[in-house]
Amino acid sequence: MPPFDRSEYLDRIAATKRRMEAAGIDLLLVSDPCNMNYLTGYDATSYYVHQMVALALDAEEPLWMGRAMDVACARFTTFLKPENMLGYPESYIGVPERHPMAYMAGLLAERGWNRGRVGVEMDAHFFTARCQQELMQGLPNAQFSDATLLVNWVRIVKSPQEIAYLREAGQIVANAMNAAVAMIEPGVRQCDAAAAFYQAAVSGTPAFGGDMPEGPWMPSGARTAAPHLTWTDEPYRAGEATNLELNASRHRYTAALARTVVLGEPPVEMARMIPVVVEGMNAALERARAGVTCEEVEAAWRTIAAAHGVEKASRIGYSIGIGYPGPSWNERTASFQPGNTTILEPNMTFHMILGIWMADWGFEISETLRVTNEGAPEVFSHVPREVFVKI
Amino acid sequence: MPPFDRSEYLDRIAATKRRMEAAGIDLLLVSDPCNMNYLTGYDATSYYVHQMVALALDAEEPLWMGRAMDVACARFTTFLKPENMLGYPESYIGVPERHPMAYMAGLLAERGWNRGRVGVEMDAHFFTARCQQELMQGLPNAQFSDATLLVNWVRIVKSPQEIAYLREAGQIVANAMNAAVAMIEPGVRQCDAAAAFYQAAVSGTPAFGGDMPEGPWMPSGARTAAPHLTWTDEPYRAGEATNLELNASRHRYTAALARTVVLGEPPVEMARMIPVVVEGMNAALERARAGVTCEEVEAAWRTIAAAHGVEKASRIGYSIGIGYPGPSWNERTASFQPGNTTILEPNMTFHMILGIWMADWGFEISETLRVTNEGAPEVFSHVPREVFVKI
Repeated sequence: MPPFDRSEYLDRIAATKRRMEAAGIDLLLVSDPCNMNYLTGYDATSYYVHQMVALALDAEEPLWMGRAMDVACARFTTFLKPENMLGYPESYIGVPERHPMAYMAGLLAERGWNRGRVGVEMDAHFFTARCQQELMQGLPNAQFSDATLLVNWVRIVKSPQEIAYLREAGQIVANAMNAAVAMIEPGVRQCDAAAAFYQAAVSGTPAFGGDMPEGPWMPSGARTAAPHLTWTDEPYRAGEATNLELNASRHRYTAALARTVVLGEPPVEMARMIPVVVEGMNAALERARAGVTCEEVEAAWRTIAAAHGVEKASRIGYSIGIGYPGPSWNERTASFQPGNTTILEPNMTFHMILGIWMADWGFEISETLRVTNEGAPEVFSHVPREVFVKI
Repeated sequence: MPPFDRSEYLDRIAATKRRMEAAGIDLLLVSDPCNMNYLTGYDATSYYVHQMVALALDAEEPLWMGRAMDVACARFTTFLKPENMLGYPESYIGVPERHPMAYMAGLLAERGWNRGRVGVEMDAHFFTARCQQELMQGLPNAQFSDATLLVNWVRIVKSPQEIAYLREAGQIVANAMNAAVAMIEPGVRQCDAAAAFYQAAVSGTPAFGGDMPEGPWMPSGARTAAPHLTWTDEPYRAGEATNLELNASRHRYTAALARTVVLGEPPVEMARMIPVVVEGMNAALERARAGVTCEEVEAAWRTIAAAHGVEKASRIGYSIGIGYPGPSWNERTASFQPGNTTILEPNMTFHMILGIWMADWGFEISETLRVTNEGAPEVFSHVPREVFVKI
């Protein structure tokens, strides 16, 4: 029932255990929903309550723990044996005095996992300060260490099946981009273009459907200066730009794609910058090859930008893969930024995004790409790499 | 530009400060995206990076702090003065050695907020164990205390404008329910019904559009036994049930609505239970009046259920309001559950949900409601309170 063979999950677990051994960790507690999905297949939007996956060096399978009612979600989505899915009772819900992590610590202790070195994802979404406090109280003989990003680094190189899902997500998000761009006309409400995006991203193609998107960013007008705004129900206006940073997902594997549409001629300053950004992006894409470092990819952009007097403080991309609405498609490992010496390997996947955000305007162009064995990267969506001008 | 008058934000801040004083807190650090929105208007899906709102007893306005590029998001969405929006530099992104909370602790210290009692939301989504560690290191002369849910309790009684947005969200989610139910037929793919939901939830009505939904749950067939699954791209099948737990949002105020559709006659066991659940839900709704406790509301359901031999371990509702994809529409304060003695007050709003999840089947009926001054609650969506049978 999960989207990968059992053997692929066991490979992921073996790779994770190797990193655990290297870090001296006996028991890894995983709270990041993406990492939980990666290790077990667990795929439910239940992470608004506490839950985790425990992987012990001495156990073949991880242990899924969560709210009792969500054991059913684990049963339908993970590859785990039934005895490896355990729930905490409803009396731990909606009662701040009782914390689910205290109960889950008890389950760990029952298995003898209450001593040795315990790795927790101290900076993972949803692993709160209280979670750590409760675990430390519940497992007083364990030594805690920070294992943030341990699983994320295992995730960075994708398998053929993961690539296949990302490629499908890339097709879907290209369709969704075309649908949104087609809708944007003066007088059309922003929410109606957003609805067209969702319709296309979720319906997918005749051959395969889309999963829950992590939500688009699509500010318009002066709001294009702000990277992470959504839409309003105001109409689009002639002369204004709209940024579309969209995404689509297959079995939670997310491809992102950004473009900007202008309803009329772009303002002079933007018009001057667009060819620089496209040229810089093409140069960075061309550079994104196996053996090159992340900072060298960024430098390819930076060199061209600097030659034209363009400065951009923020990174131009990051590793991408499993994502849940949060949003979390960013794997938080390698970034295309100065100082980042991660070496690109085949089947790493990145979202390269050139976002220009000025005082009261901005535009974005992005691609989701795969580093290849053969040379230039594979790009998952095929949409003209330009700012769309609709007159 | 924010959806409420400045005076309403100031009222919220005054109410929050009263709770801070009662708890002996000089400085409150708020990381929950819903609480950040509530206190400042901040409305961007940027919470995948660390950010927070700091409210000092001695300051008129809160201070918004986040990633430098997101200061623009604050500029477009909050009521704050420009000097009360501060960014941390890009060098704190994608570099685990440097943590944004360390930088933000420095900003607090610059304002003299580095001593006294500091309240943090130790169990709020996105306030990680590392966040607390960094703040404690960065503010060594402060005393930390847990202020989880402090703002959430301020949020529980809604203003007239908040109620107006929830009422609009209730209209949208009713339309979205009708659109999804209409799509569900044998042979139609689940993802295409999900797409119809999103189209309706985001497009909204001709008078007002919808915001980003927090995402529906809509499992089908045996998967209806699991509460928090989404959809697949498999076709709906004759004889099978589909649970639709949907939501729509206006300025992030979320109304939820659940119904079940069966393509054919419901199985005998389900058919026997449906009228019990509807009767029990009606009784609980009837009981949800000002002056009554949350556990008394639940007892109204439980009494009827028990008389028919029906048991349900999980709570039947919780306070609802601002929500962001996570999902987080649940305010995490009052719940309709045994032992919960919160007394209902006018303009509290709840999602009452009767979800029945058995070994391999389940169904759900829910309403988002407002406790009134007049007697029975106002229900925000008007959709027949039944299991829909499509023959």
